[in-house]
Amino acid sequence: MNIREYINIKLSTDFKDNDELPFKITKKNFKKGDVITAYGQIERSGYFLLSGLIEIAMLKDIDEKIIDFFLPPCFFCSYTSFLSQQPSDVQVSALSDAEVEVLDYLELQKAYKTSLIANQIGRMATESIFMISTQREKDFLTKSAQERYDELLSRRPDIIKLVPVNKIAKYLGIHPESLSRLRENLLS
Amino acid sequence: MNIREYINIKLSTDFKDNDELPFKITKKNFKKGDVITAYGQIERSGYFLLSGLIEIAMLKDIDEKIIDFFLPPCFFCSYTSFLSQQPSDVQVSALSDAEVEVLDYLELQKAYKTSLIANQIGRMATESIFMISTQREKDFLTKSAQERYDELLSRRPDIIKLVPVNKIAKYLGIHPESLSRLRENLLS
Repeated sequence: MNIREYINIKLSTDFKDNDELPFKITKKNFKKGDVITAYGQIERSGYFLLSGLIEIAMLKDIDEKIIDFFLPPCFFCSYTSFLSQQPSDVQVSALSDAEVEVLDYLELQKAYKTSLIANQIGRMATESIFMISTQREKDFLTKSAQERYDELLSRRPDIIKLVPVNKIAKYLGIHPESLSRLRENLLS
Repeated sequence: MNIREYINIKLSTDFKDNDELPFKITKKNFKKGDVITAYGQIERSGYFLLSGLIEIAMLKDIDEKIIDFFLPPCFFCSYTSFLSQQPSDVQVSALSDAEVEVLDYLELQKAYKTSLIANQIGRMATESIFMISTQREKDFLTKSAQERYDELLSRRPDIIKLVPVNKIAKYLGIHPESLSRLRENLLS
């Protein structure tokens, strides 16, 4: 699914061509391991994931924590940097080869001034990102690593399947050995 | 400042009367200590705070954690419940007498279907709530209680002034005695 098809589904529109959309879209490919947005870089692009697996990480002292994983179809970028146009405190990387559609920041701001559809899709994407990040925050505040692992397994089994164990451990904020124990608990 | 004035500033519009807005607004008053949205209740209203002090709390086992404080002018509600129309896992309460403007959920969804302005203000409010909640999450993941207290002090000194010490401690996730020590560290 691409942005145009995503908008058609979400807003019951019938765009047959990208030229009809209220913003320009370009295509881009990333290789496995590519840093898409580096720490300290200002995010000038919003991305829509067509294929591949993306991670967002942040640094705590010298430790890296993984904030989120993305699988298609969805929007992603360093969204706080994108919104504030301040240096990113997260790093966005491709965990596999990835194909994306790119929305330029200035293009989008221009569209936001006059386009109902741009604002509807921007609002809905932001609502969805907000829901995901709030859930994660609440889970961190109120749930054990075991409970968070169980939730990940039930809500996003695709992530457990596709993401390397050491990355899942960094996401849960535990050591890879502790993750092995959680998995054993689950099987026993 | 009320919603109409807030929209006029944010969107450079010139609404002179609430009747010109794309959604209906009603007024409501809460007393100090009133629960505005209870745990388990589905949030049917978005609020714009005209005066007073609001807290949002959540439960971890039997402990209550404070998620956020709000001072005017701003939107607030149990926003994940509002968006999902599922039972709220947070509680919204008035820490002082408070005066609010109320937006009804169904009214707003209707306005979202056709109104550029409703979508612009909804998008911007969601972006702003997202930025605040993300910052808080990152602070929890990467900062000590002392650093978080210093940040609260520099970013939101009004909160430190107006909110009781035991509430600030619940917000920082520390004991009130530890908060006293942080304050002493700061003075020494």
